[in-house]
Order: sequence, then C-alpha cells, then structure tokens
Amino acid sequence: MDVARAEHPHTLPTGSPSLTVPIQPLRVTALAGGVGAARFLRGLLLHARERGLPLDVTVVGNTADDLTISGLRVCPDLDTVMYTLGGGVEERQGWGRTEETFTVAEELRAYGRGRDWFTLGDRDVATHVVRTALLAEGRTPTQVTAALCERWQPGVRLLPMSDDPVETHVVLDGTTGDGATVVHFQEWWVRLRAAVPAREFLLTGIERARPAPGVLDAVHGADVILLPPSNPVVSIGPILAVPGLRDAVRAASAPVVGVSPVIGGAPVRGMADACLAAIGVETDAMAVAGLYADLLDGWLVDLVDAPGTPPDRPVVRALPLLMTDPGAAAAIAGAALDLAATLGGPTGDATDSPTGAALLGEPR
Amino acid sequence: MDVARAEHPHTLPTGSPSLTVPIQPLRVTALAGGVGAARFLRGLLLHARERGLPLDVTVVGNTADDLTISGLRVCPDLDTVMYTLGGGVEERQGWGRTEETFTVAEELRAYGRGRDWFTLGDRDVATHVVRTALLAEGRTPTQVTAALCERWQPGVRLLPMSDDPVETHVVLDGTTGDGATVVHFQEWWVRLRAAVPAREFLLTGIERARPAPGVLDAVHGADVILLPPSNPVVSIGPILAVPGLRDAVRAASAPVVGVSPVIGGAPVRGMADACLAAIGVETDAMAVAGLYADLLDGWLVDLVDAPGTPPDRPVVRALPLLMTDPGAAAAIAGAALDLAATLGGPTGDATDSPTGAALLGEPR
Repeated sequence: MDVARAEHPHTLPTGSPSLTVPIQPLRVTALAGGVGAARFLRGLLLHARERGLPLDVTVVGNTADDLTISGLRVCPDLDTVMYTLGGGVEERQGWGRTEETFTVAEELRAYGRGRDWFTLGDRDVATHVVRTALLAEGRTPTQVTAALCERWQPGVRLLPMSDDPVETHVVLDGTTGDGATVVHFQEWWVRLRAAVPAREFLLTGIERARPAPGVLDAVHGADVILLPPSNPVVSIGPILAVPGLRDAVRAASAPVVGVSPVIGGAPVRGMADACLAAIGVETDAMAVAGLYADLLDGWLVDLVDAPGTPPDRPVVRALPLLMTDPGAAAAIAGAALDLAATLGGPTGDATDSPTGAALLGEPR
Repeated sequence: MDVARAEHPHTLPTGSPSLTVPIQPLRVTALAGGVGAARFLRGLLLHARERGLPLDVTVVGNTADDLTISGLRVCPDLDTVMYTLGGGVEERQGWGRTEETFTVAEELRAYGRGRDWFTLGDRDVATHVVRTALLAEGRTPTQVTAALCERWQPGVRLLPMSDDPVETHVVLDGTTGDGATVVHFQEWWVRLRAAVPAREFLLTGIERARPAPGVLDAVHGADVILLPPSNPVVSIGPILAVPGLRDAVRAASAPVVGVSPVIGGAPVRGMADACLAAIGVETDAMAVAGLYADLLDGWLVDLVDAPGTPPDRPVVRALPLLMTDPGAAAAIAGAALDLAATLGGPTGDATDSPTGAALLGEPR
C-alpha cells in the first residue's frame, strides 16, 4: 500500500451491521508461485464461497520457472494454479495432473529425448501441446493462459507476470556433476534438488520484460493485494522484479498482506531455505517479511513465529499456517482478508466503496 | 528402366550355381506409401533374411499426406513404414503403435483441440513431439526421419520424397457437410472416408519441391527399383510428381518392377478405387500398370488378374498377391526380385556386377 496513504488510512468502522443489498465483489490481486500459492488461493475461493463473499480475483503467476522440454513449452507455476483451482491437480504431490500416466515420457526416453529429471505425464503433456501450438500460432502467453483456463474454469483471472521471456538461472557455488556452473532454475531445483549451493540467481530477460496486459491494472485496481506463501526468492521475487511491478504494488491504494512461507525456521514446502541462503537472508518468517519491507502492510506468521516485539509495520498476526487441507487454507485466507480489512480499504469513504461493504459484511 | 537400355538388356544367365564368396548387397530402391508398402517391405526383408540375400534398401516415402495436428507434425506414411519395419506397428490395423492408449487425445478434446477424425495415440504422439521439436530446431525432414529411425532400426534407409512441403488436397465433386469444396487429403480419406467423390487431386507445393538428399542417388544407383502395392494416385503418384523423380526412375539402369495394389477390380486396402475414379482410370490391375507405362519393366498381378493377352512390356507375372501374413508378403517380394532378375541387372557384365552375383545366388 502507498505509504503516504497508509499514514492516513481510511480505516473502515468495524462492527457495522452486515449489508443485505447486493454487493460488488472484492477485488483481490495475488502474486503467485506454485503449490503454496495454489493451495492458498483454493482456500481463498473456498472461504469466499462459505461466507457468500463475492470475490473478483486476479492471479499474477510467476513464469520465470518456465522451460521447454522436447519442444513443448511448460509453465509449472501457472499450471499448478490452474490445475489446483480447476480440480485437476494430483493432490498428494501438489502439482501435475491427477490419474496421470507416463506413456509419452517413456517413448521420449526411447527416442533419447526428454529429460530424465523432468518427467511429463500424459495428461499434462496435452496441456503443453496445446500451449505450444497456440504460441506457434502467434498467440501471447496471456492469451494462451486464458485459452487453457477456458477448460479449467479456475474461478480466477490467471495472468502470467509477463508475456516476455524471463528465465531464472542459478549460478552454482560449485558445479553439477557434468561441470556446469550455471543451470536453469528447474535443473537446480528438480534435478539437483538444490543440493549444490546457489551463489546467485540470474533473471535473464528481466530488464526488458514488461508486465503482461492487465497486470498493472489488477494491481492499481485491487481492493486487497495478497502475497500467498510462495518462495520469496524464485517465485514472488521474479514477479516483483518485472520492471514497474514492484513500484505499482508499492503505490497501490490497497493494503498488501502476505503469508509467511516459512514456519519455525524452515520452509513449509520446497527448498526456500537454499534460495534464501543464496541471497544472505535467514530462513525466518520475519526475515522474509523484510524482503517485502517497502510494500507490506500485513504479515501472517505461524504461532511459533509470533514476534516478541511486533513491529509497527507490517502488522503481524500469528495463527496456524499449515495448509493441511482446503479448510485450513480457507481459514488462513480468511485471516489475510480480515487483516487487510483492518489495515484500510481503498481510498474514498465507505459509501463509495463496494469493498468497504464487502469487508463490513465479512464476519470478524 | 531406361528404355534404350531395356531394348538391349544385359539379362543375366539363370541357372548358374550359387556363389559362396561374399557378395555385395543388392541395392533396392522402393517408392512407398503406407500400409501396403510397409507390409511388402517387411516381406522383402524377411525374404532376404530367409535366403541369406544381402540387401541395401532405400525407401522413398510419400510425404504429401503429412499434416499438422495441434501443432504436431505427423507423417503417416513414413511412420507406418518405420513402425512396421521396426516392430512397433499395431498389426491388425496396419498403422499406429501397438499397445496404444489415448490419454493425450482425450485431453486435447477436453481443451477443444485436436481433430476428432484423426486421433493420435499416446505412443504415436511421442514420435510427433520429437519430430516437431527437431524440425523447430532447424533439422530437415530427412534428418528428422533418420533421427527417428535411430530408435526403430527399420533395416532400410528411409527417406522422405522431399524436404519441401507438398500437400495433397482434394477438390470435391460436391461439398463436405460444412460447405468446403477443397479439403486436405487426410480429411477426405479419414474423416469423409472418400465418400464424397473427388474431382481432382491438387499437390500444393509440388512444382517447387526438390527430391530430398539421397533420393536421386538411390534411384540412379539402384540394382532394382520396386513399386510396392501402394495407392497409385495419392501415394506413388506424389512421389513420382516431385520434379526430376519420374525422369530419374525412367532413366535408371535398374529394372522397375511393381506390385498391383488392385486385385479383382478392387483395392486390396483403402479406397484406391475412389482415387482412380477421380483421374478416370479403371480400378483394374492392368489399368494401374498403365499409369506407370513409361517406366515399368515388370508387373505383378494376382492370379485373378492374369491378362488373357499379356503385353510385351511390362512383363506380367501372376501370383497370389494377398499379403495375409509376413510369409505371404515375403513370397511376393521374392517374386518381384525374381522378375527383376529376368528383366536385366545393371549395365556391365556379370563379373562387374555384384547385383548379378546376388541375383545368381537367389534360388528360382
């Protein structure tokens, strides 16, 4: 949230009676990585459904992890969000398609193609075949994502952070077995399991990348901006690194509320500690908040991470953060919206503010 | 075979004793469509194996049926030959992969993509993924075919007729249900099952197509040129229509022997009658031979098609032509080689001619 505005937030009165008149949906914009974000967002939609709270959600997804395998364009983070919200995700692993088979991958291996450390399931392959075909026809990543979502109906507007190519590469503190010292993020993450320490992350193409159409509008027009529990270095980091995007979030009138991806000094999922180490940041919930210091208004941490002396900003709330099931995720998402409501709605008074109404209608 | 040479063929003496010294392989060049050619060629290799006859076989495959489905480049005729000779074909239907599943196709349909009349199996999809990726990397169709054959080891050198795009389109005598009057060959063949009469076949791109590297050399250098039982209009026809190719076959020193794809007035397989009707040719074994009149030296027909008054040229042999199993196909292929041997080997006398030796070593 804009700091100038944050100093005089039009905090909405609490305790007002719920409205029964039709209310405008709350405009939520979230910056998303993969599994953590997808589960959080599913919780957000569940929370809204359970409370009858109309939401208009835009998800800005990380595309710096994207890669091309056997000529097929794969967007792991966008697909994880799409499959999870669309009901097609393999629930236990958190990514990929449910009831998956691996015939195509087996055949690619027989041809000496594919990558043995990144196996595509058959159902998943179809997504990449369609994506690759549409891109070859000249459609943009934004248009392709929208086309894929026509099938999945994720209940959110899913946007890539940029239509321009950005790729996270990892400068290793050491080498891979075969001597490489710089590898694509996915090779470091999936093949090497982040076991070779990272010295630095390079975002190739980032300087020339522009926010995808709709991204800046979604930030400017949001009533609430959420940072789900995603990797701050390689998921949220690249999104905020798209020129203009971090400034837009900072300048937005909406409160910015994040959810810690770290609980008790360890990442909830994945290997965020290896990423944080590379940039010299402690694997600690409050240290992660420090990465967003210029834009964060509210921060949810786990009970075990409640700071002894809470800072003035961001406003910290402690609650159980393990997304053990959709209901738990819904509770966390609800807490994020609640915190956003206490931090101030959009500028303008409550009668002008459909969001205010929605927030008022939201039980505390 | 070159007619000037054919008038004075160096016919090899028959009945010579088999040679036991190592012999040079017989250089066979075949022009191939899909299933019929693939089964004939498998018979040819089986025949050679059974007789200890070394062969060096080049297959020039039709690529005018190729099409792009969901961005994947599909070469039906080349793949049918490759799968059949490589032991991966679905035997009953004669094309596609054995033990096939259809997960990707099902998913493509869920995305509203793919073509419901041309379903790709999952194993088959992998071939097209690899092909498409290699083409996107800048490799030529010839190079891609060779790369795919590294896996399949078909026992022949498989060449596309041309690296340039040629597509058979069908001008309909009527329209499809949705009003089209010109459709891609595969749509006419697979979707419409050739039920809407064809008025004309258009080979788009043919004027500018060049024979693929190695094709003319394989024709010039052949000891025997074979026309397997393929569709004369839409399989062998496009190959011979590549500028320079028909002339090369006509000028070649090797005898040219064909196998009728028509038995008893009906195509053995497929809908060649619908193709022949479009060009005003009777569905008759000898009428098909007439399409090759300028280049054919020998012609195998089924017993039911033995002409009452055989022509001087081509020399016709009648034998059972149904390829009911690989053994039957081997017998037909053997008969084709036998007939070629009686029609004359390459120029030069037998001592210069490894082919002559091979043919001599071949029991009659």
